[in-house]
Amino acid sequence: MTQPHKITMLGTGFIADFYTLTLHNQRGPERVHMVYSRSEERAKGFQDKWEVPHGSTSLKEAINFADTDTVIIGLPNDRHEEAVIAAAEAGKAVLCTKPLGRNASEAKRMLDAVEKAGVFNGYLEDLVYPPKTLKAIQSVENGALGKILWVRSRETHPGPHSDWFWDIEQAGGGAIVDMGCHCVEIIRSFVGKGIRPVEVMCWADTLVHPIDAEDHGIGLIRFENGAMGQFEVSWAFRGGMDLRDEISGSEGTIWLNHWLRTGYEMFTSVGQGGYVAEKAEGDTGWLFPVGDEAAELGYTDMFNEMFNCLDNNTTPMETFYDGYVVNAVIDACYKSAKSKEWEPIQLEVWRGEESVEHLRSITEIDGKILLKTEVMPDGKTKQILKDPETNKIIEQIL
Amino acid sequence: MTQPHKITMLGTGFIADFYTLTLHNQRGPERVHMVYSRSEERAKGFQDKWEVPHGSTSLKEAINFADTDTVIIGLPNDRHEEAVIAAAEAGKAVLCTKPLGRNASEAKRMLDAVEKAGVFNGYLEDLVYPPKTLKAIQSVENGALGKILWVRSRETHPGPHSDWFWDIEQAGGGAIVDMGCHCVEIIRSFVGKGIRPVEVMCWADTLVHPIDAEDHGIGLIRFENGAMGQFEVSWAFRGGMDLRDEISGSEGTIWLNHWLRTGYEMFTSVGQGGYVAEKAEGDTGWLFPVGDEAAELGYTDMFNEMFNCLDNNTTPMETFYDGYVVNAVIDACYKSAKSKEWEPIQLEVWRGEESVEHLRSITEIDGKILLKTEVMPDGKTKQILKDPETNKIIEQIL
Amino acid sequence: MTQPHKITMLGTGFIADFYTLTLHNQRGPERVHMVYSRSEERAKGFQDKWEVPHGSTSLKEAINFADTDTVIIGLPNDRHEEAVIAAAEAGKAVLCTKPLGRNASEAKRMLDAVEKAGVFNGYLEDLVYPPKTLKAIQSVENGALGKILWVRSRETHPGPHSDWFWDIEQAGGGAIVDMGCHCVEIIRSFVGKGIRPVEVMCWADTLVHPIDAEDHGIGLIRFENGAMGQFEVSWAFRGGMDLRDEISGSEGTIWLNHWLRTGYEMFTSVGQGGYVAEKAEGDTGWLFPVGDEAAELGYTDMFNEMFNCLDNNTTPMETFYDGYVVNAVIDACYKSAKSKEWEPIQLEVWRGEESVEHLRSITEIDGKILLKTEVMPDGKTKQILKDPETNKIIEQIL
Amino acid sequence: MTQPHKITMLGTGFIADFYTLTLHNQRGPERVHMVYSRSEERAKGFQDKWEVPHGSTSLKEAINFADTDTVIIGLPNDRHEEAVIAAAEAGKAVLCTKPLGRNASEAKRMLDAVEKAGVFNGYLEDLVYPPKTLKAIQSVENGALGKILWVRSRETHPGPHSDWFWDIEQAGGGAIVDMGCHCVEIIRSFVGKGIRPVEVMCWADTLVHPIDAEDHGIGLIRFENGAMGQFEVSWAFRGGMDLRDEISGSEGTIWLNHWLRTGYEMFTSVGQGGYVAEKAEGDTGWLFPVGDEAAELGYTDMFNEMFNCLDNNTTPMETFYDGYVVNAVIDACYKSAKSKEWEPIQLEVWRGEESVEHLRSITEIDGKILLKTEVMPDGKTKQILKDPETNKIIEQIL
Repeated sequence: MTQPHKITMLGTGFIADFYTLTLHNQRGPERVHMVYSRSEERAKGFQDKWEVPHGSTSLKEAINFADTDTVIIGLPNDRHEEAVIAAAEAGKAVLCTKPLGRNASEAKRMLDAVEKAGVFNGYLEDLVYPPKTLKAIQSVENGALGKILWVRSRETHPGPHSDWFWDIEQAGGGAIVDMGCHCVEIIRSFVGKGIRPVEVMCWADTLVHPIDAEDHGIGLIRFENGAMGQFEVSWAFRGGMDLRDEISGSEGTIWLNHWLRTGYEMFTSVGQGGYVAEKAEGDTGWLFPVGDEAAELGYTDMFNEMFNCLDNNTTPMETFYDGYVVNAVIDACYKSAKSKEWEPIQLEVWRGEESVEHLRSITEIDGKILLKTEVMPDGKTKQILKDPETNKIIEQIL
Repeated sequence: MTQPHKITMLGTGFIADFYTLTLHNQRGPERVHMVYSRSEERAKGFQDKWEVPHGSTSLKEAINFADTDTVIIGLPNDRHEEAVIAAAEAGKAVLCTKPLGRNASEAKRMLDAVEKAGVFNGYLEDLVYPPKTLKAIQSVENGALGKILWVRSRETHPGPHSDWFWDIEQAGGGAIVDMGCHCVEIIRSFVGKGIRPVEVMCWADTLVHPIDAEDHGIGLIRFENGAMGQFEVSWAFRGGMDLRDEISGSEGTIWLNHWLRTGYEMFTSVGQGGYVAEKAEGDTGWLFPVGDEAAELGYTDMFNEMFNCLDNNTTPMETFYDGYVVNAVIDACYKSAKSKEWEPIQLEVWRGEESVEHLRSITEIDGKILLKTEVMPDGKTKQILKDPETNKIIEQIL
Repeated sequence: MTQPHKITMLGTGFIADFYTLTLHNQRGPERVHMVYSRSEERAKGFQDKWEVPHGSTSLKEAINFADTDTVIIGLPNDRHEEAVIAAAEAGKAVLCTKPLGRNASEAKRMLDAVEKAGVFNGYLEDLVYPPKTLKAIQSVENGALGKILWVRSRETHPGPHSDWFWDIEQAGGGAIVDMGCHCVEIIRSFVGKGIRPVEVMCWADTLVHPIDAEDHGIGLIRFENGAMGQFEVSWAFRGGMDLRDEISGSEGTIWLNHWLRTGYEMFTSVGQGGYVAEKAEGDTGWLFPVGDEAAELGYTDMFNEMFNCLDNNTTPMETFYDGYVVNAVIDACYKSAKSKEWEPIQLEVWRGEESVEHLRSITEIDGKILLKTEVMPDGKTKQILKDPETNKIIEQIL
Repeated sequence: MTQPHKITMLGTGFIADFYTLTLHNQRGPERVHMVYSRSEERAKGFQDKWEVPHGSTSLKEAINFADTDTVIIGLPNDRHEEAVIAAAEAGKAVLCTKPLGRNASEAKRMLDAVEKAGVFNGYLEDLVYPPKTLKAIQSVENGALGKILWVRSRETHPGPHSDWFWDIEQAGGGAIVDMGCHCVEIIRSFVGKGIRPVEVMCWADTLVHPIDAEDHGIGLIRFENGAMGQFEVSWAFRGGMDLRDEISGSEGTIWLNHWLRTGYEMFTSVGQGGYVAEKAEGDTGWLFPVGDEAAELGYTDMFNEMFNCLDNNTTPMETFYDGYVVNAVIDACYKSAKSKEWEPIQLEVWRGEESVEHLRSITEIDGKILLKTEVMPDGKTKQILKDPETNKIIEQIL
């Protein structure tokens, strides 16, 4: 049965706001009871906006506040570790926004802290929780796509909302650590979390925004079974926010479009004042809102799963261990972007399968190896076969 | 604050199942505590499936069950009136599926019953509650489309799930009463519920299924301000379920696609066994699932609004009065389909605006009437004007 | 083999320009050798633009010009009859833009003129010639959709380019005669040109532009076999030009989008100066150009077919007889818009099939009538059957 | 003026067939007058199908055939060089299919041969000639997208039609040389052909088909100004043929979909016998034909441009030099796939710009560096700025 949970929210920025909106807009019992901000003014503003009874400018006080059983971390990346350790010490359930750390070392220390303390830990990677994605993962697990060969995950928009993202020190990097973390976990979820990501090749550059970090990145992630993950991130995309995943399997294909083309299209010559959609550009002409942003971004299902697992004492889909793996992949990406070489992914702890074979396989027909079957323009079916002894290629019209 | 509600569910068919799935899959406190079915076996099956503690084959007993405060009616159309009257007498909140009645007379008696008894009444017209639709209605109310001129609502699929739909006596009609009721309320929501629907023209025919009722219908609904509603329903569409709305205003356009093209596309050569999407046809080839069916069809937001209103003692977006108006429009449609004439919509009670003017208006430029402004292929802007005295048409290149 | 044709072009407006662009941009041998305009200046401008050697302000002179063998009529609607009769008398092939006449009487006189003179006659209904449409018609004729039940054709944009369209006297009407003529012929092409259109129901209103003619129209066309055509036209659509066709058959569905969503999407914050696409609105934000406008609108294939038929002495897909039928349908539409009743379509000459039966048919399974087959959420297949004797509805899970 | 050209077609396979179909279906004067095949039977079959008066099994004889002025090469990759050299020696215009060579050395020798002989040379890279692509390139050149940052070109399908593609010796490689050559030239066309491609990173693997060559490849191409090209090719994509390009610029975005989503959607439960679309899979369910395949793949406009240039003695968009550059890029890709490092692109001859600067630039506002402007959910505009002296990030609400 549903148990009510009382929450300490750490942070009052864009993400803390979106998390609270998601929780408070539901009929479920979860409500924020204590909010922390460095700034008393921002804490107060947040309390008023979301009817939060308590606020504090002390991280420790907020975490240890007696009324709450769950801590949600919505702070800049450089403050996650401190918060996680304090929450673990307080023995509270801890849910941390993405990326878990600025790098794998930080993430590993956070993982160790929560596991040692034995507290519930959830990694708030919302973008594996959109209803479309949950259903697509299910289809993949049901075999609808055969063997997964290639997964592309793309997240691009014109640049982040909050100032600290633009500071390489606080953020731990640029577009890659900010958005690549989403993509990496989406890719893992489709390839299979038990398959080890082995090495990466990554390109990063600063093409538009005059910052120290990268505003563009492309990464290739090779998995042990030969499957290939590909992410593309940018803080300089024009036209809104582009969130798309493509999954290619030996027996099928899935294309997910989460934001710009979801069956909601609007033209307006006059606008309506105000908000269109997250990271929309302009408010007249053809616009592409989404229905329920919190749901489409996965927040709604993510919190539902987290609190259901907390109630049932089960492990959520996304834990700090996943956050740690993601950070390890991102670390290798940054290294590769500098070395310009494929870099191995360093995983001190691997909890998936070992020694997985390459996914390639062979179909034989009458002693020949089948390369391809195709319906031709004249309606006939053609098989292309290889003789394994002579290596000769043969066509056969059926 | 959220108050928990205990529900009597009347019916165990497709719709009762979908309603219960929606409620029980959420962390909100609403749960079904009593279920009614004519068949003890079906009641038992439903109890097992949804962990419902109590069941009954007596409608009265189920409605009057002491533990529940809310009655949800998911019965065939011909049993709504009986159930509403019993629920009203029991003094319970009553939520009734669509259409409210088989015709306006039934609907009017139900409206009178709940209003006389003073009980909370909600009309479960889910298709004005999809998140896309809610946001689109908001945009229209914010003026993003200017004056609303024309609304098309289309619901077509290969035919309904349950046997009773196919019996004209139980259902009160065919595709028009089954699905046109959705469309009419969608149209009203965009044109404005305060604008009186004046008359209808409707075509109905039985093109495919050898039944007594119609399996195709098209209706035109003229509103007092000149706005035009258009619905298209079919039980013989091939390719899945087509749920689309188009709204055309003097300043803009909205296109909503709720089902077949929502940014989720899958090809599979092997399938995955079982369910793809409501009324999908086939399970291999290109398929178009939706993410969260209950959300995309509006069930989630509909029940949230209903129970929030119940808690706050406010009026929900959809009441029995709306159900009554819809039935009156549908009645006129059936009459028109037979008479082949425009038929007036008979509304004994009208609670909207009176004597609304035609939406046409005039823009003058230097004493000329502006007909159109356009950018031509050479990049110049052209105005087409009419001299109101001579009636001559003039072009003017700016 | 390809024979070169020399053309007299009547008119220098938007449509004559588009026709000439189509012809002159190809490697085919057809070129305009003589152009007529009432205005010497416009004739000269057209000659310069398209390298046309000869011009005239006399309609007769242009038509009878010795060098040319083909007359293309791109004049306002009220001048078609005069031009056709002169071209027929000159014994030249005559291709006339749409609509053929302002009404069926004019069209009938034009039809009689060309048939009496025995000259080649082509009706330039471009919108049945887009490559997508040609292929879709082929699929329908191949049986891919089974029996055609319903066809929707929609053409809406913010209003026409040239001044004379806005003058009801010259145009013969408003949006219905201007664009409905396209839709009617598209509908006929999918339903089958041999199936008689029997009666129409039409709504027309002036919702936005302060003109004498209608700027909105919706028409329903009932064919003898029960198939239903539906057209929607508007001169007040916002967002560009919406050209879509939907065809629904007992075994399938076709959706064609010719303009706003064709796989070409562009966002620009700066624009590029000038032309985006026919009737596009605005030149920044999300824009939806098409590739080759002349091809997508059917002009390229239309002229190819016309000149191929002329070479081979065969009948083109679209003749003056088709133009006459379209005018007869439109006449009935205008009558219906006034009478508010279904109006019969008056066809003095009918060259299609007679006494076609209703398309409904019956499938029996073990003496029961099959109403529907469906895969349910649990993966099972359900048949809904009717007992023809008791009229009882039965469900059967396979 | 249009000059008729008589053609020697080398080859009778899929591509020679498609080329001839394109030419013979037009009213333009180009016709194949001589066809070469190693097989007399295939030559005869081709002659019958396309009404080609002459055939030969001698390459030399076919090339030197007196009646023809133009040689089109539609042979397997390993026979291009021999054919080009013979055609150049014969002093005829030569049009060669893609890729030009199996590698840059072959391509360079072909380039030298035609330039030394002074014959017209066209590289038949059709996929920069689709009408959508031509218009998109124009928009990019007009500045609609600002500076081009990133171009993705994707060509994937279930595997090629003809047997020789599957033989690494004849083809020179697998999916990368077969389809990557398209992508590379598309990327160059958007980035700007004058910008030097500097280095590549490429992954290749054989994931599905048990062949010696790769059936999957992803390549990153870095241009001298920092722009990034990305291609993805596969012979194991399921669902048809996926041809898409995405162009991202500092001021805009273009998305082109050439095949699977072009505004033509069909569901059929029965099929229609035979051909749906190139590389379509299956002929029932949801299918996505294209209108005019030859036009959408660029063949029509490609041949028009080639013969227009030949008539006017001008240089076509695609010459053997372009083919050579493409081969050089592909060579570097294969090297990188093995070395797992970024590999420099070896261009003996570079005819574009030299020493182009990085495209990054800086906007200052009151001495601060502008990082981003954004409209927030509350409708306010926010600027994110960096102080160039302190490196501090500042937010400013306007």
